[in-house]
Amino acid sequence: MRLAVVGATGAVGRELLSLLSERRFPVTSLRLFASARSAGKAVSFGASSIPVEELPASGDLASDIVFSSAGSRISATHAWEWARHGALVIDNTSAWRMDDRVPLVVADVNDEAARSHQGIIAVPNCSIIIALMALAPLHRAFGLRRVTIATYQAVSGAGTAGMSELEQQARAALAGEPIKTGKFKHQIAFNIFSHDSDIGEDGYNGEERKMLLEARKILAAPELLLSATCVRVPVYRAHSEAIHAEFDRPVTVVEALEVLRAAPGVRLVDDRTSNTFPMPLDATGQDDTLVGRVREDVSKPGALALFVSGDQIRKGAALNAVQIAETAVASSRPRQAALSGVS
Amino acid sequence: MRLAVVGATGAVGRELLSLLSERRFPVTSLRLFASARSAGKAVSFGASSIPVEELPASGDLASDIVFSSAGSRISATHAWEWARHGALVIDNTSAWRMDDRVPLVVADVNDEAARSHQGIIAVPNCSIIIALMALAPLHRAFGLRRVTIATYQAVSGAGTAGMSELEQQARAALAGEPIKTGKFKHQIAFNIFSHDSDIGEDGYNGEERKMLLEARKILAAPELLLSATCVRVPVYRAHSEAIHAEFDRPVTVVEALEVLRAAPGVRLVDDRTSNTFPMPLDATGQDDTLVGRVREDVSKPGALALFVSGDQIRKGAALNAVQIAETAVASSRPRQAALSGVS
Repeated sequence: MRLAVVGATGAVGRELLSLLSERRFPVTSLRLFASARSAGKAVSFGASSIPVEELPASGDLASDIVFSSAGSRISATHAWEWARHGALVIDNTSAWRMDDRVPLVVADVNDEAARSHQGIIAVPNCSIIIALMALAPLHRAFGLRRVTIATYQAVSGAGTAGMSELEQQARAALAGEPIKTGKFKHQIAFNIFSHDSDIGEDGYNGEERKMLLEARKILAAPELLLSATCVRVPVYRAHSEAIHAEFDRPVTVVEALEVLRAAPGVRLVDDRTSNTFPMPLDATGQDDTLVGRVREDVSKPGALALFVSGDQIRKGAALNAVQIAETAVASSRPRQAALSGVS
Repeated sequence: MRLAVVGATGAVGRELLSLLSERRFPVTSLRLFASARSAGKAVSFGASSIPVEELPASGDLASDIVFSSAGSRISATHAWEWARHGALVIDNTSAWRMDDRVPLVVADVNDEAARSHQGIIAVPNCSIIIALMALAPLHRAFGLRRVTIATYQAVSGAGTAGMSELEQQARAALAGEPIKTGKFKHQIAFNIFSHDSDIGEDGYNGEERKMLLEARKILAAPELLLSATCVRVPVYRAHSEAIHAEFDRPVTVVEALEVLRAAPGVRLVDDRTSNTFPMPLDATGQDDTLVGRVREDVSKPGALALFVSGDQIRKGAALNAVQIAETAVASSRPRQAALSGVS
């Protein structure tokens, strides 16, 4: 496949490249695009070094698959154009997620939705991907009715700039020097704050609204009730979430664990004796979402409480995009084989 | 009043001393006790310096009020003995909180319960104190039925050792050096983990169980339903909590804000336009609990979602103890005055 990565120098772009190489994705050509500022830099891919090009203002990227992770403004402007030139655009931004023409896909959760794409497949918001890795299999087994979620979100959600800001602020705080803010309005080192997205009239911020609307679309459950409180914590790159979930029928812990144990992309980390549960440090760099603290909700018979940690850059963004691409490649093979007369 | 502070060199003990001085508590004598290790050290109180004594194995501390914050083992062993010697013991440990003879008091929430004490008044768990600063007035107005809480707890809950561990680990992480654990089993710098208390058969840990049982006792609401997920975050000394609350009747945001605005010890920090909400850094060193993100729970009509931050050492422990002592002093004055024939 001829690939293009738009936003190749960002946190998600770099992770995409390392995953494509690691997972031996079938690459015949690879073009890397970024802003004018990064153009000319070289980025390594496996053993080779690939120059970064400035993203052309319009036109054809001469690629079969375009991974778009340079921000929603870029995707909003260019994605359909790339698709019209024959590319499958796998969009890691929020630009088209709620568009009816665009499937919103969590690999291992609703891969089948990808089949109906018209040139763009969207990767959901990272927080809802990580929640759904645990909630989607439970939904299928028991019918999810209402969810409340409190997030503990890593700074990587704001890209490499978020990660450097945490590091710089932590250094300054430990040295007793003044704290500089930039990417975030509030200090993040040794602090937490309500997610830095705009607040709507109902008091929910953009991140919280995405979680509700995207969960409904991904699960094809327009009636699903979901209330999230999204909070940034001074962690580099994995998101964690405390979840309370109510179902159509009472669910026991034994039943829930059985479902979660069989769920792809989920690793149960639930050792009550040694007090070992999902932690962002353990989730960092992992493909699986860690799930634990599975217990019957003591405030609601038959409901569940649980806790998840997942790598926000990996499963929450880059890995999910690569998995979508892998499925697309696998399902396009028979057609290619037929065309070339091999089968 | 003749005061004694047991655990005078700990995080809560030191804060107690600074609050007693700051608030001009009527002190006629002050004895400071700690373990043998700290005995002989001098601790400053206002302009004076007071030597720390080793806690005697038994007997009379010759004090009217004993603040006990040297751990629940010390309180379990000595508190009733101190009380029998005529002291009012204000206990900052979990030793006697659920004992029927011991009132469990959050100042400004259930001061009236203190009147029935038999020599010991217990200060509740810090996480439930901070939650109840917002929830108790809402309960009184609307009848609290069910609460779910996810906590973002500072390391100060584990005392000064917890705070130094966060600092040491953050320095090591930034220097690329190995991380040493000690007070906590898991790394806390740039990480979060499920609260380090023992897990019961129902899957809830000790901290979560305290929140449920203590809330019921403090609010005198034995039917209250409460499910908490307690999580440590790399913050030095204020706890934050994401709360979903359901009431006996539907509650609007306007009604809730009116109640919270009038609630003592609560400061509303709820600026949706500037995205300014409660943060642990802003709560640190404050007497008030910060409350914000007040919104109707989009997943449950008539329920509320909110977010609180409160100084765990101050309102969550030392300030609450001093406030209880102040009330005790105020209510004992008429009796003293009567005895001395002044009125």
